[in-house]
Amino acid sequence: MRQRLPAQHYIDGILAGDRLVLSQSITLVESRRIDDQDIAQQALEAVLPQTGNSIRIGITGVPGVGKSTFIEAFGTYLTQQSHRLAVLTVDPTSQRSGGSLLGDKTRMETLSMNPNAYIRPSPAGDSLGGVAHRTRETILFCEAAGFDTILVETVGVGQSETVVHGMVDFFLLLMLAGAGDELQGMKRGIMELADALVITKADGDNKEAANRARVEYQNALHLFPPTGTGWFPPVLTCSALPIQSATPVGITDVWEMIAEHQRLTTQNGTRVHRRQEQQLTWFRSLLRQRLEGRFFDQPGIREQLTQLENQVLSGTLLPSPAVDRLLKQSPGST
Amino acid sequence: MRQRLPAQHYIDGILAGDRLVLSQSITLVESRRIDDQDIAQQALEAVLPQTGNSIRIGITGVPGVGKSTFIEAFGTYLTQQSHRLAVLTVDPTSQRSGGSLLGDKTRMETLSMNPNAYIRPSPAGDSLGGVAHRTRETILFCEAAGFDTILVETVGVGQSETVVHGMVDFFLLLMLAGAGDELQGMKRGIMELADALVITKADGDNKEAANRARVEYQNALHLFPPTGTGWFPPVLTCSALPIQSATPVGITDVWEMIAEHQRLTTQNGTRVHRRQEQQLTWFRSLLRQRLEGRFFDQPGIREQLTQLENQVLSGTLLPSPAVDRLLKQSPGST
Repeated sequence: MRQRLPAQHYIDGILAGDRLVLSQSITLVESRRIDDQDIAQQALEAVLPQTGNSIRIGITGVPGVGKSTFIEAFGTYLTQQSHRLAVLTVDPTSQRSGGSLLGDKTRMETLSMNPNAYIRPSPAGDSLGGVAHRTRETILFCEAAGFDTILVETVGVGQSETVVHGMVDFFLLLMLAGAGDELQGMKRGIMELADALVITKADGDNKEAANRARVEYQNALHLFPPTGTGWFPPVLTCSALPIQSATPVGITDVWEMIAEHQRLTTQNGTRVHRRQEQQLTWFRSLLRQRLEGRFFDQPGIREQLTQLENQVLSGTLLPSPAVDRLLKQSPGST
Repeated sequence: MRQRLPAQHYIDGILAGDRLVLSQSITLVESRRIDDQDIAQQALEAVLPQTGNSIRIGITGVPGVGKSTFIEAFGTYLTQQSHRLAVLTVDPTSQRSGGSLLGDKTRMETLSMNPNAYIRPSPAGDSLGGVAHRTRETILFCEAAGFDTILVETVGVGQSETVVHGMVDFFLLLMLAGAGDELQGMKRGIMELADALVITKADGDNKEAANRARVEYQNALHLFPPTGTGWFPPVLTCSALPIQSATPVGITDVWEMIAEHQRLTTQNGTRVHRRQEQQLTWFRSLLRQRLEGRFFDQPGIREQLTQLENQVLSGTLLPSPAVDRLLKQSPGST
């Protein structure tokens, strides 16, 4: 179906800010075909000097917290402030066919028609860690295409948050007031990753509860170990409704807080340090994935792995001899 | 120096509860020599049916929180309740020579002379993850030797807590009241791993502050996502002084809480499930370590890795082509 063009086509298009070519390039880098990958990597290397100049923001929260509504309001505000915005949604349930594209455009109706916003869903992928297997490259392409603010959206229930935390400058956790139920689905450890908490739906009858939750969470965060960057994660409230009228309540505060974090971490050098650490972690996890992939792709290994894992699980075999047996099957063994 | 004996010597000694042989067996399983490993693995497989019957408790907290004093008091109490106790200390700063052994015996003076307690330091090791490279096997040997309660102590500042969390039934975090300073050294994410918090040094002038801290942390923990086991991590206070006289304040409560957790998780099946998950994780991380070790031990690979990492860090090379280059050097490449 897809036409294969030389790398220069993608490079020129991306640098010119051509959205159609940007989308093609992302599809290319998400492809598992080796020839697609070759072209995508050439394009990436060529645009590399034009990358890195955005604010990268991760946004997470369990289903029902109002992520789409928040991103609609927040994104609309940003474009009003002359920002050019890319929204990358990482949906662990979506298929590689890009089936969720229409869904994302529907749930962010205003933003999807905004000329200064670009919305792109990332398919789940099947890499270890589960999701976002090319989101890092997609960020780079978007930056080279001139987007200065990147939102990476994920669902706060699985492995993907840790992965997304490892590719953004700021990690924002959306929460509901009067939690309990919403906490049920949330992964433990995620609160300590957050650079800020935002209590959503702070409107109408819910306003008072949201303010109470804000105080409670702020007290709780004070008891956490510090971030090591001089930043103390704040808790804000916001109401993303009504999006039709003026800027929704709290949205400006969220942006000013992120800008303040950016100033602080730029001044004290921790922003550069965080990105360098992320690059190194990316390299190492990719190396690990490829090494494991090469091993498991050998004939018969996966079958034997399943057998050995069952024996380990049942307690009849210890991990160490199980690993010995598996490695003995492999031609790489010494 | 060390005499090498047949596996049966270690098997018989461990099952007879002979401490000298137990110590020899642990030294054997910590050895990097292949012949030592062979014997140790034979011994492990032979004693495997006699393992698993203890309560495994991880204890962590930053330096200064009073871990040794707590373990002295807690351990003494347990032996008074007719428990047979093994204390494994994981010290990331210790050397393989076992140099910290004397140090551990000195800092747990009462317990080290208690006939129902066995103290063993684990050397740091150099595996990925940094520490405790044979602590899991050491737990199994101790269980086979008849110890029904295993304490694994670690310093709450690095990677080791996640590793230790992955090998125990209950993970206890010791904290000081009026934190601030003590939180500085603590790793983020560790609070959400804890099955309980214990505020230490709740005595004298500090008693009131400890009680306040208990309430604050308890409120904070309510805002965390649930553990998924039906267990809600409580916060207790304790004073481990004076150890000479009666049972120190709060120590009984800590033990009763752990026993309650054991009852709950045994009844609802999550204890067995947690151990099975741990076995599988142990297997997979061991497999990963061995695969990476085999790759990095090839001539020239480490040098090239360093060069490539520097290029990735400086932003001149993307992780994906860097991994490509490294893998091309390896005979296992396809």
